Amino acid sequence: MTTVLSVEYRRDHVLILDQTLLPQQQHFIRCTTTKEVWECIHALKVRGAPAIGMAAAFGLAVWANRFPGLNFSDFLVKLEQEHRFLASSRPTAVNLFWALERVTAAAKKASSVPEAVQAIENEAMQIQQEDEAVCRKIGEHALELLKDGDTILTICNAGAIATARYGTALAPMHLAKEYGKQLSAYACETRPLLQGGRLTTWELLQAGIDVTLITDNMSAHTMRTKGISAVIVGCDRVAANGDTANKIGTFGLALQARALNIPFYVAAPTSTIDLKTPSGEEIPIEERNPEEVTHFGGKRIAPEGVKVFNPAFDVTPHEYITAIITENGIAHGDYARELPRLVNQEKAVIKK
Amino acid sequence: MTTVLSVEYRRDHVLILDQTLLPQQQHFIRCTTTKEVWECIHALKVRGAPAIGMAAAFGLAVWANRFPGLNFSDFLVKLEQEHRFLASSRPTAVNLFWALERVTAAAKKASSVPEAVQAIENEAMQIQQEDEAVCRKIGEHALELLKDGDTILTICNAGAIATARYGTALAPMHLAKEYGKQLSAYACETRPLLQGGRLTTWELLQAGIDVTLITDNMSAHTMRTKGISAVIVGCDRVAANGDTANKIGTFGLALQARALNIPFYVAAPTSTIDLKTPSGEEIPIEERNPEEVTHFGGKRIAPEGVKVFNPAFDVTPHEYITAIITENGIAHGDYARELPRLVNQEKAVIKK
Repeated sequence: MTTVLSVEYRRDHVLILDQTLLPQQQHFIRCTTTKEVWECIHALKVRGAPAIGMAAAFGLAVWANRFPGLNFSDFLVKLEQEHRFLASSRPTAVNLFWALERVTAAAKKASSVPEAVQAIENEAMQIQQEDEAVCRKIGEHALELLKDGDTILTICNAGAIATARYGTALAPMHLAKEYGKQLSAYACETRPLLQGGRLTTWELLQAGIDVTLITDNMSAHTMRTKGISAVIVGCDRVAANGDTANKIGTFGLALQARALNIPFYVAAPTSTIDLKTPSGEEIPIEERNPEEVTHFGGKRIAPEGVKVFNPAFDVTPHEYITAIITENGIAHGDYARELPRLVNQEKAVIKK
Repeated sequence: MTTVLSVEYRRDHVLILDQTLLPQQQHFIRCTTTKEVWECIHALKVRGAPAIGMAAAFGLAVWANRFPGLNFSDFLVKLEQEHRFLASSRPTAVNLFWALERVTAAAKKASSVPEAVQAIENEAMQIQQEDEAVCRKIGEHALELLKDGDTILTICNAGAIATARYGTALAPMHLAKEYGKQLSAYACETRPLLQGGRLTTWELLQAGIDVTLITDNMSAHTMRTKGISAVIVGCDRVAANGDTANKIGTFGLALQARALNIPFYVAAPTSTIDLKTPSGEEIPIEERNPEEVTHFGGKRIAPEGVKVFNPAFDVTPHEYITAIITENGIAHGDYARELPRLVNQEKAVIKK
């Protein structure tokens, strides 16, 4: 019973949990080259913005440790090549680009290959430690809103395996376990890709946390009949007014929770709060391949020729969100005023 | 482009559409014995209370037409045996028992084998015609609440293939098509058994009606962004106060529709209105096998050992229901007063 680390640095290699094989197989891929890390990111074996950023940063650290030459300028040229190569693994992963930039910038401040190797390793490990600290703080703040014995409902996997540790929406579950408190969870399976059914259930079972799986259409009946204390979800992006883009289905849960007088919380690292986006109306919603809906495990389950609407995300208007939980504290309701304050304390948690 | 009949009587056999093979295969089973009809009902190849009742009634008619003997008292003894046999195909199917009773009672009023055979056949066909008339009337009343060009959202399959024709929730779609009007539908796939994704999409495509498939967690986002005019659902049982038990997920749709100011309609033959049940609290909710959720197409998709909550139905409280549409008219809101009036006109539609 422990929290599984989805990305683990071992100096001459990085271990990446293959999340595409979960829950049937728990398999770690031993990556000794940037090519292997690239493939893990590209094939979605590692998922979750923080976990992807970490995997790429550690990819550069593994490469640096194995660099055979001694010429520092050669090293920097090749580092840039590896950086660009890893950045090409996912086209729109902001966290991926940000982590690679941090590591490369650290190397450029060095004055020799050994110093640069050390700087890269330190920066990559710092990224991991910061993410773990952010997730832990989110968990601590979330626990201020919950009490021993509570049962939460969640969607998708905003969990430990998507981050350095603890996760965001699942952080209070893991932290409660550490503190010897009891929280239980209902996990919505999260069609079409079943991140709830495959990943959240698996992660919580591994950690010895009480979890029950439901299909997405069971959420309202579960809220009404199973004593749900709160709904907690992660987020992909929070706008300046608090409108929140997250996995498709989140908005529906928020409407149900409001009708049933159940608090609805968003767990949001300040890095996902985008103060330049005024409201949810400016957040584009990705539509994905219809085959995710019409096929299952490679087999067709819907009739040939049927039209499909397959949005990957939805936007929950801020008025349905009881609180937004960040590593720097909790915003309650007046988001346009509270979010800038929380974002601008961004580094406080790390400096302690 | 036509409405497919899921149960069709051909005197020496009855054709039953195998709904377990949809949408991949459109296969009709040619049943010449009550054993074959029993197997179709037992294995859920025919589904929907009206369709099951019809299949059983026609099963007796096929048996009667093939009865080799001439002795009337032997005939009645054997009829009772076949009746009991068919009644054992599903344990709790009220409509099944009711249809078999009607047919057997008609035979008992006869005074010879040929007369009894004719009475059985007439009664079975009468059951079918009545159901078709009920569904058509529901469709006509539903169309009073909709206008040309509207888009509806539905769940599960309260469709033509679950009834004699037209269906209940889908009746306005089929009838609009007959009238040359245009209604479009969004079908929720309806986990865990995918009746929406497999059956509603197939049925509407067959009829040339515009249909788009979504997963269940896409309902709220679809209601908000796709101009949904109304949500229309079927029902398993309506209590005297209007509380409605229907496929799991219905309650969640009702909460979402209310929050988004979209009317929420229940299509209910008066035979499903149970005035002896005061409210939804008295309606038991069946919980089904966890494997429906943890497995898909025989393959495990959730971790070993995970707990599952798998309710087959939920109850939508009457205050979330904009109107209940029956064959005898529409009840709007004051259900405790309106439903008895509609139920007590029960035969009006048939007598015309």
